[in-house]
Amino acid sequence: MRPVTPLLVVDIVIRRGQEVVLIRRRNPPFRGSYALPGGFVDVGETVEQAARREAREETGLRVAIGRLVGVYSDPRRDPRGHSVAVAFLARPAGGRLQGGDDATEARWFHHRRLPPLAFDHRRILRDALSRRAT
Amino acid sequence: MRPVTPLLVVDIVIRRGQEVVLIRRRNPPFRGSYALPGGFVDVGETVEQAARREAREETGLRVAIGRLVGVYSDPRRDPRGHSVAVAFLARPAGGRLQGGDDATEARWFHHRRLPPLAFDHRRILRDALSRRAT
Repeated sequence: MRPVTPLLVVDIVIRRGQEVVLIRRRNPPFRGSYALPGGFVDVGETVEQAARREAREETGLRVAIGRLVGVYSDPRRDPRGHSVAVAFLARPAGGRLQGGDDATEARWFHHRRLPPLAFDHRRILRDALSRRAT
Repeated sequence: MRPVTPLLVVDIVIRRGQEVVLIRRRNPPFRGSYALPGGFVDVGETVEQAARREAREETGLRVAIGRLVGVYSDPRRDPRGHSVAVAFLARPAGGRLQGGDDATEARWFHHRRLPPLAFDHRRILRDALSRRAT
């Protein structure tokens, strides 16, 4: 029997100098809120592949994956149920910034002028930006 | 509908000076091989809680969780199917070393005299021991 474990997601901190990309969520939970781009990992792909795919789908950007920021596994971090997020730093490497898929909007924000964020994404961003860059 | 994502496991590198704890696997795959202690994350527990629980169940040791070593997500790393491992460094913090649960044996090995290891645990160990200690 297949064991049941928490769902696995990736979140991506796309950084360029003092700015990071946030998307505006098209769907619940936190519909209309800003969030890091990210989403569920598919069976058969690595977490790095999932991060590149989700970044592309939600922001239009190709990204180069950098440092692992952390693993966020508080069972209450997603109101839909227990999901564990693997967060990466990344830098833009092509494409054009635009919302898509699960995002109505995607744009650069200065890291000192961030809107309220969905989930625990404020904490992920703080962890990502508090250490040396990738 | 609940999305389907890879299964989530934790692996723990319990370190004391130049030594690490390995267990001998009681069950397939890799039955009889040495491996890092670890196992599936339960819904409702954090990855750190899972790491402490699995270390305790498989080695008899209480452990203090240290640095995140990495996230290992190659779809072929487990022949049973796609599982993603979150690996932590840890140090012993009580208890008495003994096999249990899924391990027939648990013992300290010098990190330069390791037996062949199951899964990608050789790589995890190399990553864990190649950087500064926790």
